[in-house]
Amino acid sequence: MNSPASQPLRSVRWSGDASGSLILVDQTLIPLETRELDLRTVEEVWEAIKMLRVRGAPAIGCAAAYGVVVGAQTHLNSPRDAFVARVAEVCDYLAESRPTAVNLFWALDRMRAVAGASSLETPQELLEELLDTARAIETEDREMCAAIGRHGAALLPDNIGILTHCNAGGLATAGDGTALAIMFEAAAQGKNIHVYADETRPLLQGARLTTWELMQRNVPVTLICDSMAGWAMKEGRVQAVITGADRIAANGDSANKIGTYSVALLAKAHGIPFYIAAPSSTFDLSLETGEDIPIEERNPEEITHGFGRQTAPTGVAVYNPAFDVVPASHIQGIVTEKGVISPVTTENVRALLGSNG
Amino acid sequence: MNSPASQPLRSVRWSGDASGSLILVDQTLIPLETRELDLRTVEEVWEAIKMLRVRGAPAIGCAAAYGVVVGAQTHLNSPRDAFVARVAEVCDYLAESRPTAVNLFWALDRMRAVAGASSLETPQELLEELLDTARAIETEDREMCAAIGRHGAALLPDNIGILTHCNAGGLATAGDGTALAIMFEAAAQGKNIHVYADETRPLLQGARLTTWELMQRNVPVTLICDSMAGWAMKEGRVQAVITGADRIAANGDSANKIGTYSVALLAKAHGIPFYIAAPSSTFDLSLETGEDIPIEERNPEEITHGFGRQTAPTGVAVYNPAFDVVPASHIQGIVTEKGVISPVTTENVRALLGSNG
Repeated sequence: MNSPASQPLRSVRWSGDASGSLILVDQTLIPLETRELDLRTVEEVWEAIKMLRVRGAPAIGCAAAYGVVVGAQTHLNSPRDAFVARVAEVCDYLAESRPTAVNLFWALDRMRAVAGASSLETPQELLEELLDTARAIETEDREMCAAIGRHGAALLPDNIGILTHCNAGGLATAGDGTALAIMFEAAAQGKNIHVYADETRPLLQGARLTTWELMQRNVPVTLICDSMAGWAMKEGRVQAVITGADRIAANGDSANKIGTYSVALLAKAHGIPFYIAAPSSTFDLSLETGEDIPIEERNPEEITHGFGRQTAPTGVAVYNPAFDVVPASHIQGIVTEKGVISPVTTENVRALLGSNG
Repeated sequence: MNSPASQPLRSVRWSGDASGSLILVDQTLIPLETRELDLRTVEEVWEAIKMLRVRGAPAIGCAAAYGVVVGAQTHLNSPRDAFVARVAEVCDYLAESRPTAVNLFWALDRMRAVAGASSLETPQELLEELLDTARAIETEDREMCAAIGRHGAALLPDNIGILTHCNAGGLATAGDGTALAIMFEAAAQGKNIHVYADETRPLLQGARLTTWELMQRNVPVTLICDSMAGWAMKEGRVQAVITGADRIAANGDSANKIGTYSVALLAKAHGIPFYIAAPSSTFDLSLETGEDIPIEERNPEEITHGFGRQTAPTGVAVYNPAFDVVPASHIQGIVTEKGVISPVTTENVRALLGSNG
């Protein structure tokens, strides 16, 4: 089902009242097909999380929270104690769907705590409280994205080309994402922008997801290979670079998808500002600098067999780091829901994170 | 058929005397299979050129020259005039195999001229003269590669990592190639080198061909995605960058596979020398600077369907430049068969090209 032009297709949403259902965009079909799933059993929700039909930490958290509501619907006629026990059982079950997803546990713990601490008397009242909590988790995420969008869009002049790397879009969140939220907001404000999306080898998140999201919202986008970013800058096509981040150290050094470091360096060489967009929860103040961020190495087959076909000699040595780290000195600003950190210094990071935004 | 360790597998060679045959490595099977073709009819040679079983301008020229010998073998019992007419017919026929390959025409014209101008009396003598000419074409190319290898290897210290982009190897020539010739020569001199090969999207020449050639010769090589080159430099894995070139302007600005510009900029940012390796025939002195080099744009499907599978939304806009241009100011030296141009200036280009090397 295609959404109307410029209307965001929400990756995770609830349909109806407490007797309703969870609606997910099946991300495994993107970019070839856009299909929403209507999930009415907790087993379907479990399968959707397990099979990456929903992905991205905030989106998984929201889906799991709504999944608890779906799982509790079947026990409305049970005694109150049995209903609360069912909620705990559903939380345990869903926690097994992606055993490494921190946001999943966080959302499930919050749902479980609400059921455990509630003073409401009937399962129906409890179910409605659970739905309110899931909606709050979604709303908080949506508002975080919107705030990043507003703060970031204010940095952008009209009539510009913006380059992005990987996918920091709405599919991974309940809202508009982080880096892409800025582009959606700038476009909504009537600014004339054109996005260049790096395809982002090896897993092609830019080609598969970023272009799709921007096309869904009618924001002009052009797909390029990662190796073309520098030349696009040289040709004057790019006036700003914005990417997401996976982890940010106390001094502002930012880890993100492999290739982000190169893009930041190329931007600097061309005098183009490079911005990071990320929620304040991305900062890990236990890490003094980016030197402390461990770089995961991933499976060589992502490079040698990346598209269902072998494209390199059998047995070739491969180096496949998942992330790299952009030094704070190469970052013009870090856009968070609380505001923009610029210049990027330990003092400014501390000041913004300590504020109420 | 795998060649013995460290023995170069020659992309194009002749087997036997004038009654022998043309042996080609079937490049369409690389990197999954290494197979030599033994071609005994001119139709087989035509098919091999047409189907890109042999590719790279110098290699095609050599294959065509030997193809003329194969085609003339069938007319040894004809009168002398009929034999010479057969040579012309074979040249016309082979010229149709790749109608845009300049080196193909150049080699065929040279073979035709030898037959036309010869004072030898018998078809057997003429055939041997044709074989000698084809061998000379091969030898000249091989010597050009070897000279580039020697001049380039002299620039490299021991114990270094070398990054290369695309494929400037022996498959495209009768010899060791250009950028790779330097690496083969350095390794043969006993230098401890480790090559990082950019996979080189969209067509993956680095993943498919460069890694294969280096593995054939037991030169240590690690495959990376293009987006990883900057990070590999930052981590201290790379002490020199060497690539080929497709066209070089009078001031030394060098056009090469898209992504070379980024690699040169990243090298500069890390204080790593960037070298171009190319025969002097790559210079086009009619072009004052790189601004005059037209940049071909190629089919979007190379990016959206690059691996036999659609990896981007239907209808997405794509920018797919085939080449970019590295400014002379970013090039530490241009290694030719006549010597090294360094610093890269219009005066130094003119001085070297005018020399006898």
